[in-house]
Amino acid sequence: MDKIITLDYGSGGKKTSELIDNLIVKKFKNEALSALGDGAILSGEEKIVFSTDSFVVSPCFFPGGNIGKLSVCGTVNDVSVSGGIPKYLSLSFIIEEGFPFSDLEKITDSIAETAKRAGVSVVTGDTKVVERGKGDGIYINTAGIGFLRHNNLSPENIKNGDAVLISGTIGDHGAGIMLSRNKNLLEGEIPSDCAPLNFLCEKLFTLGDSLRVLRDPTRGGVATTLCEFVEESELSIELFEDKLPIRDDVLSVCDILGLDPLYSANEGKILAVVAPDRAEEALEIMKSTPEGKNAAIIGHVTDARAGKVTLKGDFSSRILTKLTGAQLPRIC
Amino acid sequence: MDKIITLDYGSGGKKTSELIDNLIVKKFKNEALSALGDGAILSGEEKIVFSTDSFVVSPCFFPGGNIGKLSVCGTVNDVSVSGGIPKYLSLSFIIEEGFPFSDLEKITDSIAETAKRAGVSVVTGDTKVVERGKGDGIYINTAGIGFLRHNNLSPENIKNGDAVLISGTIGDHGAGIMLSRNKNLLEGEIPSDCAPLNFLCEKLFTLGDSLRVLRDPTRGGVATTLCEFVEESELSIELFEDKLPIRDDVLSVCDILGLDPLYSANEGKILAVVAPDRAEEALEIMKSTPEGKNAAIIGHVTDARAGKVTLKGDFSSRILTKLTGAQLPRIC
Repeated sequence: MDKIITLDYGSGGKKTSELIDNLIVKKFKNEALSALGDGAILSGEEKIVFSTDSFVVSPCFFPGGNIGKLSVCGTVNDVSVSGGIPKYLSLSFIIEEGFPFSDLEKITDSIAETAKRAGVSVVTGDTKVVERGKGDGIYINTAGIGFLRHNNLSPENIKNGDAVLISGTIGDHGAGIMLSRNKNLLEGEIPSDCAPLNFLCEKLFTLGDSLRVLRDPTRGGVATTLCEFVEESELSIELFEDKLPIRDDVLSVCDILGLDPLYSANEGKILAVVAPDRAEEALEIMKSTPEGKNAAIIGHVTDARAGKVTLKGDFSSRILTKLTGAQLPRIC
Repeated sequence: MDKIITLDYGSGGKKTSELIDNLIVKKFKNEALSALGDGAILSGEEKIVFSTDSFVVSPCFFPGGNIGKLSVCGTVNDVSVSGGIPKYLSLSFIIEEGFPFSDLEKITDSIAETAKRAGVSVVTGDTKVVERGKGDGIYINTAGIGFLRHNNLSPENIKNGDAVLISGTIGDHGAGIMLSRNKNLLEGEIPSDCAPLNFLCEKLFTLGDSLRVLRDPTRGGVATTLCEFVEESELSIELFEDKLPIRDDVLSVCDILGLDPLYSANEGKILAVVAPDRAEEALEIMKSTPEGKNAAIIGHVTDARAGKVTLKGDFSSRILTKLTGAQLPRIC
């Protein structure tokens, strides 16, 4: 029988130390982490980028990842699209009494592996336990510190004629989670795209001011993020329907559920707006990384309809708005 | 009727923006927060102190505070006892569907007020919503960044003859929470001591190397923290029972419940170990702040019993061990 989390493990006493020593410190050992009880001392002489996310994805294990991997990727990517090189993570668990230790171990293994892959260190953390029925297995928060490398990424930089790029296929994470919740929809599974994109972003930073803005289209999907880019602008974005990279199985799942892949969450994709004369170079940079091999130029910026995002098909076009309501609750 | 949180608010779409704009950005407006979507860019040229805590206290409103105030104090104090001057906070909510907006507003007001009092800025955040029965009202995570001011605080610095100080009465938070869960135990209420202690700590930093170690005795209480100070040492700590500042009502609640105030959580107290020749000065520093007016020298370091903490009464003494099991689940 699996060892389970009991309330003892959140007490701050012996059991908490045991949990932290065996599952946290052991896996994330580094100079800053071992130095202190309550906080990590970091060295830095540059501008800091700071970001946080809580993760409540259900189920907490899914094809292509789990809540642990997701919690590293999510914050690493948020720091990266803000122009930072992520370096340090905090890690905090809220665990439901009864959660199997073996699952917690798989999750922390996955956190350690993903942090290593992204080149970031987990330097401080916390663990709380709640009674049965007051959580749902496990919730994780990470906060990330990075050092600023590109200091001018903002939707305000977008100019008429700019190209819109995506680093790969659209909507995989959302569709993958929905399929793992409803396994009878389709044969097989769709792996989440969940991946750290800091190295891809770092390469894009070399484009300097030709790189206008970066964003990872998670909850709300590609459509919502693009709407945010232009909502307060005189410019608009036109997407070319036939250029959108979408997996057939993602299309099928979305079709069956009546969802639109453009609103389905991504956890390993970057949207970039780039000056037209550097667009091909940006595409090559993306394609040169494992995470960006399916990158595509999917649209451009125009001055046609202030503040709007339009999807242009062969025979018609429609205006995309920000996501309203919850398409997919607990997706991340 | 109160507006309630629905799953829409965690969707990443319009409702999420509305929630963030109305409840977060408005209350915590500052230069770093407004600059970016996903991460805050901070300026820093010093060594960084980084800490995080998740807060799951039940009930989320209690005499002397609420989960919002607690979530600021907890992280501010962790950064402070690590030798840092706290400056920036991240703030992340996990809210149960159905949670009243009015309560969320009270909590965010309290966060804003406490952050202002402590002189820290909330610069980045996140909000997730979980279905009814998958949370318990609201859980909050904060992570804090501070800049290192005292770079040599550690239990390893403790020397034979050092004095042990506490900045005020013991066990108030734990006893206050227990009483608010069992209102029939006693007439009246016990206010939590929940308070930011960064200014008190900053003043103590002027003691230099005479200040050996600081720690805020939260979960596990004073006894557990003192055990952690000496557990790997050749030294021991003797506490004088008649010097311990404990409120009568805290003693009564602990008596009725069969608890020991030395294991009851504090959320606005600092334990300090100080060189004997600076102990009176440290006491005066504590007493000069509103949070430290009941400070006391409660014990000293000896070489009597390696690694042990002893409580000395008039006629007998007993050895204190670290908290085993959960004395008070969901206390913070």
